[in-house]
Amino acid sequence: MDIKIIKTVTLIPGDGIGPEISTAVMKIFEAAKAPIQWEERNVTAIKGPGGRWMIPPEAKESMDKNKIGLKGPLKTPIAAGHPSMNLLLRKTFDLYANVRPCVSIEGYKTPYTDVDLVTIRENTEGEYSGIEHLIVDGVVQSIKLITGEASRRIAEYAFEYARNNQRASVTAVHKANIMRMSDGLFLRKCREVAENYKDVKFTEMYLDTVCLNMVQDPSQFDVLVMPNLYGDILSDLCAGLIGGLGVTPSGNIGANGVAIFESVHGTAPDIAGKDLANPTALLLSAVMMLRHMGLHGYANKIETACFDTIREKKVLTKDLGGNSKCSEFTADICRRHPLPF
Amino acid sequence: MDIKIIKTVTLIPGDGIGPEISTAVMKIFEAAKAPIQWEERNVTAIKGPGGRWMIPPEAKESMDKNKIGLKGPLKTPIAAGHPSMNLLLRKTFDLYANVRPCVSIEGYKTPYTDVDLVTIRENTEGEYSGIEHLIVDGVVQSIKLITGEASRRIAEYAFEYARNNQRASVTAVHKANIMRMSDGLFLRKCREVAENYKDVKFTEMYLDTVCLNMVQDPSQFDVLVMPNLYGDILSDLCAGLIGGLGVTPSGNIGANGVAIFESVHGTAPDIAGKDLANPTALLLSAVMMLRHMGLHGYANKIETACFDTIREKKVLTKDLGGNSKCSEFTADICRRHPLPF
Ligand SMILES: CC(C)[C@H](C(=O)O)[C@@H](O)C(=O)O
Ligand SMILES: CC(C)[C@H](C(=O)O)[C@@H](O)C(=O)O
Repeated sequence: MDIKIIKTVTLIPGDGIGPEISTAVMKIFEAAKAPIQWEERNVTAIKGPGGRWMIPPEAKESMDKNKIGLKGPLKTPIAAGHPSMNLLLRKTFDLYANVRPCVSIEGYKTPYTDVDLVTIRENTEGEYSGIEHLIVDGVVQSIKLITGEASRRIAEYAFEYARNNQRASVTAVHKANIMRMSDGLFLRKCREVAENYKDVKFTEMYLDTVCLNMVQDPSQFDVLVMPNLYGDILSDLCAGLIGGLGVTPSGNIGANGVAIFESVHGTAPDIAGKDLANPTALLLSAVMMLRHMGLHGYANKIETACFDTIREKKVLTKDLGGNSKCSEFTADICRRHPLPF
Repeated sequence: MDIKIIKTVTLIPGDGIGPEISTAVMKIFEAAKAPIQWEERNVTAIKGPGGRWMIPPEAKESMDKNKIGLKGPLKTPIAAGHPSMNLLLRKTFDLYANVRPCVSIEGYKTPYTDVDLVTIRENTEGEYSGIEHLIVDGVVQSIKLITGEASRRIAEYAFEYARNNQRASVTAVHKANIMRMSDGLFLRKCREVAENYKDVKFTEMYLDTVCLNMVQDPSQFDVLVMPNLYGDILSDLCAGLIGGLGVTPSGNIGANGVAIFESVHGTAPDIAGKDLANPTALLLSAVMMLRHMGLHGYANKIETACFDTIREKKVLTKDLGGNSKCSEFTADICRRHPLPF
């Protein structure tokens, strides 16, 4: 008999529908007997010494200890000078790779049936450096910062990911015809890293061309790696192809196994607390988390249960085309675990 | 009886399939008795005084005189330091607005049937400023330059376009949540200009959200206005929705009526000279040109003839799903002009 080692994960339920969908995920994990225990933490930003925004020490300590987090949506702060919580989290834990697998979901109709790709986005620099200047009145510059180190790191992540997930190719997405030095550096690092992964096919494509080809035939793409802003755009585009942010998982990965998995949809304040939310994106993010932890058996079973519920179309939340409540959808996934895992 | 005033247009046939598709357009214009005469010019870049790349004086003078140009595809220069010819043309004539109407074409099947939108891209600054620095080895910065003047100018163009083309709304596309100063300035100018166009609805949307919504339901969009790089991306994405660059027209508009209309596909060297190319993108660009010149009657008739040929599906080039030659496709469009215009 297997001895289960229970691992602790930091759970950040988030705002709006966050608590409901977090509860749904916890229930499904319990039904699946996944060996996870949750440590709930709140990450509303606080002002630290020197007036710097930071995440509360209890959340930081929990993440430092557990290394793995699962996070619901966080509301966008409205205070002037307040950073996006998502960006603050990525920064605090140096989560340099944003990974979003986009796979067509059987039974959930979109114009595309054969999407099966992964966007891997550099998460720490590029257009998100936050450096901007007013040159003279009416003339502003924003700086896009590209380093060889961060470019090499994300390229290596992408090739490792491809190799470990039986993916055949990596495409570097860039505009080095325009940003010759910055995207040029990014591209050069991708090429260098590709030399060490002869088992994975390497191609390069302009961002505009990727967008055009993507909407015409997404099946031609596999793993895509790119600088920060391009990843922001392309990951949303690809989410759109499979049904939107409500069904798209996401992971932010750092060094030494540190990672936060999150649903990237909004907090949906209009339906919050009404048991109407769709927990799929957070659940599939939790499935990514299980894989990241090496718990592939649990990951596959939970994912299959979720997809079975969607394919059968009997118990679906409103956004998925049904009339069921979040708790009913959750229960339908849970009942698919009759056998111990 | 109408007295026709014949106008002269600078024709830049371009490379690869450029000459063939230019010939096709000229034939169709002749059949339609469009009051245009062509002045052919070559724009291979030359090195001017001080080693600066420039377009040949004969081409420059022709454009300066005629103000309007029609241009086929140009091959990407491979010489180091050689600028993109497209960028050089935009710069030389200060063609500040890139306009791409994307409309679903009946009979040409794509996953979308109800696309009817226009992307309006700032064409002179932003990420295309060309300013880049090596800070230290392995650290590069590219500068995105946004000015209030260029932002106001493109916003005004977009609202004028909407008003003159019976379009209900303008959406400003931005990432001002990340690039607060630069995209913030762009957005502020859009808002200011919107105040003067109360008859046109104004909305704002993040670029990533636009991409997501675009692939889910393009029919929600009308006129979109945005900085340079976002326009590069979004215009290609939208072209993909209606069938690609082979059927998408484009216009680069400057001050005082100066404009160059162009097909934005490549030179297709593999099929060049074989009478296999599809002239639709260049033809529809020429139709945009006619509208720009106020020749709406000719524009509508030529456009209708082209769409009729595509819808009937009898005489189509290979890329459109048929077996016909460029000249046969052209002849089929020409034969639809039995009545004098
Ligand atoms: C919330 C926002 C700052 C963020 C981004 O722009 O990166 C979001 O769009 C994302 O993709 O995670
Ligand atoms: C050819 C290239 C420089 C150009 C661009 O990036 O603007 C092209 O993609 C376009 O959209 O016209």
